[in-house]
Amino acid sequence: MRTVYLNGEYLPENEAQVSIFDRGFLMADGVYEVTSVLDGKLIDFDGHAKRLERSLNELGMQKPDAFDDLLDIHRELVRVNEINEGMIYLQITRGAPNDRDFVYPDPETTKPTLVLFTQNKPGLADSPVAKTGIKVISIEDQRWARRDIKTVQLLYPSMAKMAAKAAGKDDAWMIEDGKVTEGSSNNAYIVKGNTIITRHLGNEILHGITRAAVLRFAREAQMQVEERGFTIDEAKEADEAFITSASTFVMPVVEIDDHTIGTGTPGPISARLREIYLEESRKAAI
Amino acid sequence: MRTVYLNGEYLPENEAQVSIFDRGFLMADGVYEVTSVLDGKLIDFDGHAKRLERSLNELGMQKPDAFDDLLDIHRELVRVNEINEGMIYLQITRGAPNDRDFVYPDPETTKPTLVLFTQNKPGLADSPVAKTGIKVISIEDQRWARRDIKTVQLLYPSMAKMAAKAAGKDDAWMIEDGKVTEGSSNNAYIVKGNTIITRHLGNEILHGITRAAVLRFAREAQMQVEERGFTIDEAKEADEAFITSASTFVMPVVEIDDHTIGTGTPGPISARLREIYLEESRKAAI
Repeated sequence: MRTVYLNGEYLPENEAQVSIFDRGFLMADGVYEVTSVLDGKLIDFDGHAKRLERSLNELGMQKPDAFDDLLDIHRELVRVNEINEGMIYLQITRGAPNDRDFVYPDPETTKPTLVLFTQNKPGLADSPVAKTGIKVISIEDQRWARRDIKTVQLLYPSMAKMAAKAAGKDDAWMIEDGKVTEGSSNNAYIVKGNTIITRHLGNEILHGITRAAVLRFAREAQMQVEERGFTIDEAKEADEAFITSASTFVMPVVEIDDHTIGTGTPGPISARLREIYLEESRKAAI
Repeated sequence: MRTVYLNGEYLPENEAQVSIFDRGFLMADGVYEVTSVLDGKLIDFDGHAKRLERSLNELGMQKPDAFDDLLDIHRELVRVNEINEGMIYLQITRGAPNDRDFVYPDPETTKPTLVLFTQNKPGLADSPVAKTGIKVISIEDQRWARRDIKTVQLLYPSMAKMAAKAAGKDDAWMIEDGKVTEGSSNNAYIVKGNTIITRHLGNEILHGITRAAVLRFAREAQMQVEERGFTIDEAKEADEAFITSASTFVMPVVEIDDHTIGTGTPGPISARLREIYLEESRKAAI
């Protein structure tokens, strides 16, 4: 049984409950972050904390009182749940007012809800899937317009994941106005020669913490980086493809819409970036 | 203190809690309905139950065991909370699995969450606001693409409502590709002469239960109805404007983006439709 954190308390997971009036439950009025753990340490914690703060600001949501203790809370959860490899999920909602209303509650009387829990994933870094790669389908992007804010409005990404599963594949790349935005819960990349192509930042995609780190490492390793939209047809003709996210790091993509990418096995640039990312992240973990 | 319903139990509202793993809380994976109560009876209950079933089907979400008892549960909540005028809010989520995952949980082991609560609103039908009308702003529609499914992804409508409030107005009409889709939680209409114009049904708007009834009453009263998109400029030049929803019935709009509609007071068609809707709904209430 996991120990989770909820509004100042460490609780057994089956006792962690929120009010039915919580705006996270009634109105998807919440934001989240997922931070990976390797060797019992946090990967890119500062990046996730900064993005969390930005999400709160964009939605005019107040910080929970414990905001400055988030590092300690993460570490305590890692400790008590004995996580060596895995993830810490964190969610903040606008809290639970006395009744349902589209109007935001008074922040003086309704405090944000803060919840964190661990997901134990032994073997996360040494995933066998990274050695064979994943297969993706393409699907129309039907999400709301502000995907740069990491909200809990995850119904469509969940539907996209189910569509991939129904097709016997692993994930879905979403398409808007003819160009790939991103995967269901990850940023999407293709490789042509020595050039890595991934969509430019904007409201259309999440500003991935892992994305920023991987692009930095790629540039340091003398790879070319082009931040621009690309079509599924361009992706199908690419030499390599991959995704990045906090929990998959760099994960090769070997098939897009039944079309084999490159040799059908993870390409050298994807594999190298995964290696560099894991190595550098372990070094910088706190 | 209200008595609410949660998964088979009638509870004091402050004891009604859901797991932090509920997919309604973590992923906005839930649908809802709001049914009005007049004279202690339910308005359009069958329409709401049918739309709820459609929402569940569209999302591949199973019905809760108590689905066939929903009328009884509504009536019991009306009785114990002594509601004469008000609303019953109902929400179904895909339930609380053991952990967070984009993949839907196994419906054999994870049962849907069903919650209902009352909102007591004495004077709901005789609202003074209906006599003066409301003022709206226009705002870009940034919601997801499937607004015909009544999901709890209400963050943007909530933001729209706050934008209206910040401008000193009552609500926001959302614009997509130059045409009005709907209000933050209501369908939008304009009137020109004897013709009522409201957006045609599609994935872009909620298929309002009140909308269907009001259009039926309008046709029965020999008014013309045009179901098509309209621009904000066309709306500003209209003779009348109004909104419909389960909880506002027919509510006149007297200002759009600081532009006075008609005489700046509720127009005769809006007022007449409100009167007919309330009269017919009270007769058909169960």
